[in-house]
Amino acid sequence: MEDNNNTVDKLVRLFGSQKAVAEIAQCSPNSVSNWRKRGVPLKSAKAISDNAHLKNVDITMQQIVDWIDIDKNIENGAIKSSDFQNSKGEANYGRLMKTLSSIKSHGGVQGVYTHQSDATHTPMTFSVFVPPHEAGQTLPVLWYLSGLTCTHANVMEKGEYRQACAEHGVIFVAPDTSPRGDGVADDPDGAYDFGLGAGFYVNATRAPYSNHYKMRDYIEKELPRLIAENFPADMSRQGITGHSMGGHGALTIGLRNLDVYKSISAFSPIVSPVACPWGQKALTGYLGGDQKTWEDYDACALIKNGAHADHLLIDQGLADDFLESQLKPDLIEAACRDHDIKLNLRRHAGYDHSYYFISTFLADHIAWHKEQLK
Amino acid sequence: MEDNNNTVDKLVRLFGSQKAVAEIAQCSPNSVSNWRKRGVPLKSAKAISDNAHLKNVDITMQQIVDWIDIDKNIENGAIKSSDFQNSKGEANYGRLMKTLSSIKSHGGVQGVYTHQSDATHTPMTFSVFVPPHEAGQTLPVLWYLSGLTCTHANVMEKGEYRQACAEHGVIFVAPDTSPRGDGVADDPDGAYDFGLGAGFYVNATRAPYSNHYKMRDYIEKELPRLIAENFPADMSRQGITGHSMGGHGALTIGLRNLDVYKSISAFSPIVSPVACPWGQKALTGYLGGDQKTWEDYDACALIKNGAHADHLLIDQGLADDFLESQLKPDLIEAACRDHDIKLNLRRHAGYDHSYYFISTFLADHIAWHKEQLK
Repeated sequence: MEDNNNTVDKLVRLFGSQKAVAEIAQCSPNSVSNWRKRGVPLKSAKAISDNAHLKNVDITMQQIVDWIDIDKNIENGAIKSSDFQNSKGEANYGRLMKTLSSIKSHGGVQGVYTHQSDATHTPMTFSVFVPPHEAGQTLPVLWYLSGLTCTHANVMEKGEYRQACAEHGVIFVAPDTSPRGDGVADDPDGAYDFGLGAGFYVNATRAPYSNHYKMRDYIEKELPRLIAENFPADMSRQGITGHSMGGHGALTIGLRNLDVYKSISAFSPIVSPVACPWGQKALTGYLGGDQKTWEDYDACALIKNGAHADHLLIDQGLADDFLESQLKPDLIEAACRDHDIKLNLRRHAGYDHSYYFISTFLADHIAWHKEQLK
Repeated sequence: MEDNNNTVDKLVRLFGSQKAVAEIAQCSPNSVSNWRKRGVPLKSAKAISDNAHLKNVDITMQQIVDWIDIDKNIENGAIKSSDFQNSKGEANYGRLMKTLSSIKSHGGVQGVYTHQSDATHTPMTFSVFVPPHEAGQTLPVLWYLSGLTCTHANVMEKGEYRQACAEHGVIFVAPDTSPRGDGVADDPDGAYDFGLGAGFYVNATRAPYSNHYKMRDYIEKELPRLIAENFPADMSRQGITGHSMGGHGALTIGLRNLDVYKSISAFSPIVSPVACPWGQKALTGYLGGDQKTWEDYDACALIKNGAHADHLLIDQGLADDFLESQLKPDLIEAACRDHDIKLNLRRHAGYDHSYYFISTFLADHIAWHKEQLK
């Protein structure tokens, strides 16, 4: 991030003069001078990106926002925080995101981004790999939901997906697993399996979790909009996968939105939170004791209630310490058999619950999703 | 690690009775009883592994050692530390290593091991990936030396080499970058580029570094012996590569031992420590100011002094922050041209110094090494 002077200087260089910047931003040259002190208002950034083509300049809203350190400007009083509040006075950066890092890999770009989420009312960080592609081309999107304790970073560092995404032309999106930050309630005992890092992809209804734990809305509604607007994504071709708690997330979000996610797979998923200690603790904590409200968040229940995917692909290691107590793939095998869903459940001798397992088969999943998303 | 009772119990189960264990260990049944209190002596473990075939039992020294928690036994007085001392009274576990973890991945096994090094007089940890292979088959070995601040773990987690190693049948060994532990001297200011995590693959001659910083001997002599004895390695087919400081290590160790390492490559190597700040600081610190003693540790100097590799492969990112100040690939390009060495120096636009770069091209290197090691 650079300071405001530099942002104005960059705009002046781009458009040729301060006067030209003012014209394109639909304000007076004096206002542009003031930006050097108070920062570039978002509405002016929007006007600039909307009208830049009139001066034969190619610049996106995102690029301008990347030049502006919003948090710093709010802190310094250079930008009013009311510019970023919704009608309820809550923080609302809208659809803007900031680039935290952007690194070339396998011919594409592995980026990490953050934005202020309307769903969770917190900043949310996520990673996106965009493989090499032709200018103007749009690509299918594979969502990867992570497991307990993970952030966007685990699969980014250990998943070994970029080679396959480059080969098959697939965008890979990895969100965080919960809201985070001051004021976000955690497990009362700080346990790893509830609260921070353990959002379970639900919309919490019980206080104090209902303030921020809206991971269902975040993954289903808010983040796809951001992806669609900021990346060369063909949103008519989306697939979803995930690991463990994220496998549960992929199965349930996929099964609830079969029109959106054309392909669904999972690694070592919690196939029935209703029937295992991790899930029972999480669903009780986020939703309360009425088990009827749990059914939307249980892949086996969704299948029994009529969700009919064309295919499901699941990989499961047989040396996985959580196999018997938490994961129980037999349950989804039975549900799929009873409801005529083609499930390819592959049991792998010797493999455990780690990324050493996931990375062995993630390229396979990417190829499979690409095939479904043709 | 399990306790001694369990080790004895396991031996009894293996050989059928305590008496049978005593026979095979060439001691009295009373001694075996005593092992339950004082631990299994290494010499008895050795006798058992040597003679197990007489009872049609297949067990290696390594397997028995893995059952014995040596450090705990020494601590408890159950095993005498003199069992592990050499004639100078220094710790000496000889060629024994302990398995810290062993996880299935890509059809093979990714392991992490530790042993007491004779070269550095410290414990040393390293990782080895053994790809799937036929029983009795031996495989070529690729050494990967890591860069500043790294341990054995960085490339293991982020290098994305296992798929290619499985495909090409190559064992991948990643050592640590320096000795570590109490009493190992570090950079006086705790800087990242000298001391711990920055051994520069030299044999230090200056106090206080000369006590432990013998990474040249460790990589060239000691660790290969351990690898040969404990893994299905064909030591007549070894290649070497590495990154940054480890690229320097690979080039210099390779060029000094052309009969041992049949293929040499590097990622973003320090090609001439003599000619860059990182190298000048390290060589002064470890060897002193006489630059004549530095030449053994400078790839360009080794080439000028007659080391003639058949081929070298180097990948370098052009968005690497250290390119101009520290890495200077032009220098080795000139040295190879002057001395008729075929250098394939690939410059990659947009790539930086990170594992996002390395992981993009490491599979290429593995295929190239395998081709040289046929």
